[in-house]
Amino acid sequence: VAQERGEFEIIARYFRPLTEGRAGALGLADDGALIAPAAGHALVATTDTLIAGVHFPGGTPPELIARKLLRVNLSDLAAMGATPAAYLLSVALPKPLNEPWLAKFCEGLREDQERFKLALIGGDTVATAGPAVFTVTALGEVPEGQALLRSGAKAGDAIFVSGTIGDGALGLRVMRGEFPDLAPQLRNFLLSRYHLPQPRVTLGMALRGIAHAAIDISDGFAADLAHICETSHVGAIVEWTRMPLSEAAEQILALDPDARKSVLAGGDDYELLFTAESGSADAIQAAAQKCGVPVTMIGRIDRGSGVLVKDVDGTAMVLDSFGYQHF
Amino acid sequence: VAQERGEFEIIARYFRPLTEGRAGALGLADDGALIAPAAGHALVATTDTLIAGVHFPGGTPPELIARKLLRVNLSDLAAMGATPAAYLLSVALPKPLNEPWLAKFCEGLREDQERFKLALIGGDTVATAGPAVFTVTALGEVPEGQALLRSGAKAGDAIFVSGTIGDGALGLRVMRGEFPDLAPQLRNFLLSRYHLPQPRVTLGMALRGIAHAAIDISDGFAADLAHICETSHVGAIVEWTRMPLSEAAEQILALDPDARKSVLAGGDDYELLFTAESGSADAIQAAAQKCGVPVTMIGRIDRGSGVLVKDVDGTAMVLDSFGYQHF
Repeated sequence: VAQERGEFEIIARYFRPLTEGRAGALGLADDGALIAPAAGHALVATTDTLIAGVHFPGGTPPELIARKLLRVNLSDLAAMGATPAAYLLSVALPKPLNEPWLAKFCEGLREDQERFKLALIGGDTVATAGPAVFTVTALGEVPEGQALLRSGAKAGDAIFVSGTIGDGALGLRVMRGEFPDLAPQLRNFLLSRYHLPQPRVTLGMALRGIAHAAIDISDGFAADLAHICETSHVGAIVEWTRMPLSEAAEQILALDPDARKSVLAGGDDYELLFTAESGSADAIQAAAQKCGVPVTMIGRIDRGSGVLVKDVDGTAMVLDSFGYQHF
Repeated sequence: VAQERGEFEIIARYFRPLTEGRAGALGLADDGALIAPAAGHALVATTDTLIAGVHFPGGTPPELIARKLLRVNLSDLAAMGATPAAYLLSVALPKPLNEPWLAKFCEGLREDQERFKLALIGGDTVATAGPAVFTVTALGEVPEGQALLRSGAKAGDAIFVSGTIGDGALGLRVMRGEFPDLAPQLRNFLLSRYHLPQPRVTLGMALRGIAHAAIDISDGFAADLAHICETSHVGAIVEWTRMPLSEAAEQILALDPDARKSVLAGGDDYELLFTAESGSADAIQAAAQKCGVPVTMIGRIDRGSGVLVKDVDGTAMVLDSFGYQHF
């Protein structure tokens, strides 16, 4: 692809340091990168794109964009039980290049690649007349045959989620000016949950050999559980009263019961949703404690199809477009 | 990343068939793809982005965009000597979705992934308010330690190129309305060279163990040879009279000697430029013949730095920004 003037300087100054001397990156000075999984391991590859104005508003701090970009990809690796290894980054930036912006963006990448132990090994840098576009392809390692898939849920499995559910969607609503009466520290909590997902990487790795099926919650709790049900050919019954909610979400729901829709159908939580034998509950709690991430059992898998969420009184909550078919 | 309405239908209808049932693609229904290189092999990963209005003009047939997108990535794999294996595709498409356009785009992908023997294993589909953006991450396999790098050129090596040089840049000029007197079939030849690169995949594979250094010509002949020189800490001396030119390029140069600048400095040829011991010339010609790609010896590597192109009379041709330092 034809190069912009200054692309090589940009790569040398901003991106090459992010390789951290990784041999396979070849200094970002070759046609591709080299990566080989350890013996007996496969690579997991995932890609996600963020576009200015679509996935984050104009004016979002560049460090946050960078960290969210890495983290949404890391969350996909976590959902597969993979150990993060490396990533490729394609950036399309508006002309003229805003170098202070790019420096902060790379600072965000550096911070999170150190935290999650992966390094940049390749990429592409182009100019665009449109909004900025960022694509990361993240690569992780998983022992052969041990990747967590969406398709392994079995009737009788218990259903678990990490962390708290709904904060991402509620954080987006806070950002848009809703819930003005919520205490500032709770508003900030929800905003940070929206802006800065916590990919459950160590939990995903710990669930190898334990979880039957796993997914990260990006489309929304109900939709993502439906994905597991579809690919596993099973149904799911969830107890609303068991859903782990943050204090901020609890306060919003006390005033606005309709916000339950945001909790169940909103996206961007980036928590892990997984199934396992109910007999694995102790092992799962031990793993969760080791990872410092709360995990909650919220329901069970049966031989039906679709997702049923039972309300406090045992009746089915109506979820637009997520019907439940019994057996 | 939050999903558009209809993303799942788009994936099922247009993208899933492109996995050709590859197991590691997991039906594009999981959080990532699985890929493991054969024993004793490493993966080569490369990524390239094409943006509407930057890398191709509006109105370019979607099949051509798709095929160029795959081919520029395949050309990077070829330059590393890698066997194509799989690719991930991220597409950002303007709303509302133009389905006939997308169908043709996928037809182009299908045609070339069959030709070059790789399959889609993952991706991301988002809507954008800006121009369409396409990012491919291509993965190939290469025996451990046999990847062709830019850094292996040695003083005394002969320099070779595949195919003919300059057609890509001249094709772009034809597209912009230049050279109106050129015969239509020659204009079409140059246009097709610009629109549809021929990645030299089988030649790259055949050069494992033979070539010392390799690159594909995307930035331009002189710039790409300079990349080899920089990373290998050597200099290059090229004879202009040996440069392989197409009939179309010859005719243009006969009328417009200034077009030599397009030949040497223009990009988008996607030919392989490589160095090897001069004693390997016979083996290289045999490999080239087997691959059906002409290869021409055009110069030699020495212990200097930078790129010198010698004119017919032996004097140095002036190349903007590519100085040559003797020893």
